[in-house]
Amino acid sequence: MRVKLIGMVVDSEKRREIDSLRQSSSTTLRATVPEVEEILYEPYPLLDHGFVRVIDYMGDDSAIVQAARVSYGRGTRMVTEDRGLIRYLMRHRHTTPFEMCEIKYHVKLPIFVARQWIRHRTANVNEYSARYSILDKEFYIPSADQLAAQSSNNRQGRGDILTGSEAKRVMEILLADSEQVYDHYEEMLNENDQGGVINSNHNGLARELARMNLTLNYYTQWYWKTDLHNLLNFLSLRADPHAQYEIRVYADAMMDSVKRWVPIAAEAFSDYCLESINLSAAGLSVVKRLLAGEEVKQDNSGLSAREWRELMESLGKT
Amino acid sequence: MRVKLIGMVVDSEKRREIDSLRQSSSTTLRATVPEVEEILYEPYPLLDHGFVRVIDYMGDDSAIVQAARVSYGRGTRMVTEDRGLIRYLMRHRHTTPFEMCEIKYHVKLPIFVARQWIRHRTANVNEYSARYSILDKEFYIPSADQLAAQSSNNRQGRGDILTGSEAKRVMEILLADSEQVYDHYEEMLNENDQGGVINSNHNGLARELARMNLTLNYYTQWYWKTDLHNLLNFLSLRADPHAQYEIRVYADAMMDSVKRWVPIAAEAFSDYCLESINLSAAGLSVVKRLLAGEEVKQDNSGLSAREWRELMESLGKT
Amino acid sequence: MRVKLIGMVVDSEKRREIDSLRQSSSTTLRATVPEVEEILYEPYPLLDHGFVRVIDYMGDDSAIVQAARVSYGRGTRMVTEDRGLIRYLMRHRHTTPFEMCEIKYHVKLPIFVARQWIRHRTANVNEYSARYSILDKEFYIPSADQLAAQSSNNRQGRGDILTGSEAKRVMEILLADSEQVYDHYEEMLNENDQGGVINSNHNGLARELARMNLTLNYYTQWYWKTDLHNLLNFLSLRADPHAQYEIRVYADAMMDSVKRWVPIAAEAFSDYCLESINLSAAGLSVVKRLLAGEEVKQDNSGLSAREWRELMESLGKT
Amino acid sequence: MRVKLIGMVVDSEKRREIDSLRQSSSTTLRATVPEVEEILYEPYPLLDHGFVRVIDYMGDDSAIVQAARVSYGRGTRMVTEDRGLIRYLMRHRHTTPFEMCEIKYHVKLPIFVARQWIRHRTANVNEYSARYSILDKEFYIPSADQLAAQSSNNRQGRGDILTGSEAKRVMEILLADSEQVYDHYEEMLNENDQGGVINSNHNGLARELARMNLTLNYYTQWYWKTDLHNLLNFLSLRADPHAQYEIRVYADAMMDSVKRWVPIAAEAFSDYCLESINLSAAGLSVVKRLLAGEEVKQDNSGLSAREWRELMESLGKT
Repeated sequence: MRVKLIGMVVDSEKRREIDSLRQSSSTTLRATVPEVEEILYEPYPLLDHGFVRVIDYMGDDSAIVQAARVSYGRGTRMVTEDRGLIRYLMRHRHTTPFEMCEIKYHVKLPIFVARQWIRHRTANVNEYSARYSILDKEFYIPSADQLAAQSSNNRQGRGDILTGSEAKRVMEILLADSEQVYDHYEEMLNENDQGGVINSNHNGLARELARMNLTLNYYTQWYWKTDLHNLLNFLSLRADPHAQYEIRVYADAMMDSVKRWVPIAAEAFSDYCLESINLSAAGLSVVKRLLAGEEVKQDNSGLSAREWRELMESLGKT
Repeated sequence: MRVKLIGMVVDSEKRREIDSLRQSSSTTLRATVPEVEEILYEPYPLLDHGFVRVIDYMGDDSAIVQAARVSYGRGTRMVTEDRGLIRYLMRHRHTTPFEMCEIKYHVKLPIFVARQWIRHRTANVNEYSARYSILDKEFYIPSADQLAAQSSNNRQGRGDILTGSEAKRVMEILLADSEQVYDHYEEMLNENDQGGVINSNHNGLARELARMNLTLNYYTQWYWKTDLHNLLNFLSLRADPHAQYEIRVYADAMMDSVKRWVPIAAEAFSDYCLESINLSAAGLSVVKRLLAGEEVKQDNSGLSAREWRELMESLGKT
Repeated sequence: MRVKLIGMVVDSEKRREIDSLRQSSSTTLRATVPEVEEILYEPYPLLDHGFVRVIDYMGDDSAIVQAARVSYGRGTRMVTEDRGLIRYLMRHRHTTPFEMCEIKYHVKLPIFVARQWIRHRTANVNEYSARYSILDKEFYIPSADQLAAQSSNNRQGRGDILTGSEAKRVMEILLADSEQVYDHYEEMLNENDQGGVINSNHNGLARELARMNLTLNYYTQWYWKTDLHNLLNFLSLRADPHAQYEIRVYADAMMDSVKRWVPIAAEAFSDYCLESINLSAAGLSVVKRLLAGEEVKQDNSGLSAREWRELMESLGKT
Repeated sequence: MRVKLIGMVVDSEKRREIDSLRQSSSTTLRATVPEVEEILYEPYPLLDHGFVRVIDYMGDDSAIVQAARVSYGRGTRMVTEDRGLIRYLMRHRHTTPFEMCEIKYHVKLPIFVARQWIRHRTANVNEYSARYSILDKEFYIPSADQLAAQSSNNRQGRGDILTGSEAKRVMEILLADSEQVYDHYEEMLNENDQGGVINSNHNGLARELARMNLTLNYYTQWYWKTDLHNLLNFLSLRADPHAQYEIRVYADAMMDSVKRWVPIAAEAFSDYCLESINLSAAGLSVVKRLLAGEEVKQDNSGLSAREWRELMESLGKT
């Protein structure tokens, strides 16, 4: 049974290619995860034209256990033992067994998101080349509920949603400039989107140059492959509330694929990383004093005002 | 004596900061290279607003030798022996001793160049954040002699230089669109380039969103640090005639800094990598047959037409 | 049909675990390679007690093409086009598409081989822990035809095979010392190989300490996972005649698995890397002069005696 | 003023080489740290024959700030601002600015320690080659107070110190086997430690084979270079009480060198990493209930017995 994830993010030709892949199954002796097979090749639709889809995977929860034990078989222990071991490994930062699972995604994403993403270096990447090929006319325009003002207290964050004439004007600018730079891109290339020459007296600017006229909201695509440990590291930074919304939606979709793929590791990751907090030396000292019944205020805590506020929030005391 | 590399790529305030660094010297027991000290902190001006400058370095030619020998001192052998060892290491791909030298650059470069550059993963990078700060109004416009047509036989290459009305129109587009997207960037941010609010009834779009309206020729900056082995690998790909001109100028400037820093390694790199050719199994067989006096043509060479052409060019037979 | 690779490198319990894995197949939509499935989990027996076996794999030749094209489907072009593209990518060092295939091995190998192997950093590793567990009594003794003298002209190489009393004495030493250090290991652990306590008045030395008494020919094991590009890099160094025999046998077996897995890439690797030669700037100049009919000798070649000899050998002129 | 770290870990020839390096200073414009210059090249003596010494370094605390700000100068802000920024970066896992500092060590260490150490992959390494050269007769014997029994509750840990006849016997074994394997190593090489041939009728076994007869407590050496971020990661694992004593002493000495080199970053690392604790989702929930005055026991805590014990220890409630 195929899970239907997708609306209209791929056109009918690509839809046929995906369907064709989903119809040709093979027999394998490798570890196989039915919950991932269900969504294999299927795009998770994201933003207005983006997606992420699982292209291939290697290993499952048992592969983590198998590598940690350097065992000959797939692991003959009981499921509860495997779960205990995976949680132990996660808790104690024994990260190498998680590197034994590998996953490959095909991602379509705005260039400004790609520029954040690529900073994660421990991955394999093949990106669509605008030096070699012509980019499609596809660009990202935020939805109205994501058109946020600059945060007043966080230089990297968003504040209130823009409304009224300001919102309207921003939308107009983004849309009109995106349209215009692409029209000019085609004009400089001297090629329209059906591949026809526009002006037969012109040569057309080199692709590697013409691309520089496109704005950072244009979509690019890549194949991106990494191991589970490095993927979780990516997710812990990019599925975080402080991450920019436009990359967080990708991280959230990938987190869903991880839950299908390695549910025990995903749960351990949630418990010991995503939902955990780090108590600094000074923060720990505050907690100990509070538990001893002492009255502690920021000014006798040894913490800065900001750290104090963060600690109180973590402890649910605000 | 300071070598004067720069015209006007930095403004007077930055010039003062650089001068200040160049006036405060220290005493050190570390390996020191006067030829690099001469240019330390000084920008090599590149393209219209870009630069690369050496910020720091670790090691010299002797450090390669010292590590290869795991020696206690800096190396007491004669210079000719050191040179022989460095050339031997380069020739036989003993790459780890070259990793013992490290260099740090500050680079200002167009975003589309940064996107190629960042694909070299074995490096440390800190980029100026357009999520956190506002980008300057600085964009790249190719000079007239770099305004090339798409190559007709190489999808990744450039052909003839555009002239006349076509060149004029391309220049107009690049310039006007670059100006326009920045004006709109400021308008959406609701902040002009003196930092003043434009419309007091507006909030200003979040920086992390507004940046998406900029085109890929806008300049960004980063600190980029790597070891000599990985730097040479970068240079072998980016100082190559097939590399895009706009990244090659950076590679060429960095190659100059490498010649100052580790002249023996730089020469070995030139002889055994940059100026060398790789003969495939089939290509080697052709060379052997030619040396034996045999008449060899493409159709009895075992090479494709393209490989044959490349081989004949390498051998200077065209 | 299962290919029988193995003699007695695994005991009957491990044999059953492997058989059990080989009997439980699944259905998958992933790219699957029957030639690898044939040998999946089966050890290639190597040296006296070692092996390498493929535990899992991701991708096939088409996956390289698919990533290079950032395509939606698996590749609908003709096989000849795919082959051409793979060869082009290999020839021009476009290495990233080869990173899209991943393979995982289980390896049993002497510690001194493991110490060479681990220098390849771009891989994932889980090693059997002698801090946590007790090592088996399994050590490597070279066969008579590998008991080589030190090479007289290559400080890293082997010369003639030892014979007579010298060979006999070396064998005696290696065998007796290996036996003795293990007996003492057990004695210090205060545990014999059935797990029974030897001396009930003793505590037994910590495992993390006792292991230091073992010699470097003891076998260890690991799971080792890497991508195809980095694997080929490993093979180009370790399947080379200059590599130590004891690691070369592993590289040769792995090369066999690569030929099964990605035959087109393996062939391209052979043609453009393994069987290719690099001509330095000076070497290329010699070849050009020879082709022009000039008489060239070492002393007017610009090459050192050693480089001249290597070049003449490459060109088959000795 | 030179700090005297060393007893007799290097012989007089090496002492002279080190002294010679320490007497030849240069002038540099690079960031320089007097507290590191004081100990540059000087070995920290460790274990019975080991050491670690700083060979070179790049950057200082300001270099972290400079890279985080992508600034032109070295940083003109006040020290308190720099300190605040470094602590902020450490607290929020903004790790890349810490990669902008680099350090190079020369380390002499037992092979079994080297095997743990090399698992940290993000580093540059050149090791003394026992394939190429002959190893010195230097091996590690634990001091009496480190001769620990296997821990009864931690398979990777140490328990009580061995005493009496058991301690005596372990010492005898380690010493005698270390001596014997080296004597046999020389005999097989057919070379004594003055380099003289032992038996003129013998060829001598190849070095790459003879080395396999040495035990894992023999000392090896390497140059090891890494950036500050990866060094801190190494230290957080290896300066930890759960790390094996024989590697922990190296980590402790390196931590001392870090405090000299980048004192502000070192302090932040101590506060936010070394001395911090991680509270899992379930652990955080327990703390909140305790702070609310609730009675919480292990059986109603949602924690395993082991996690409960660890949490109570962290909170100082045992």
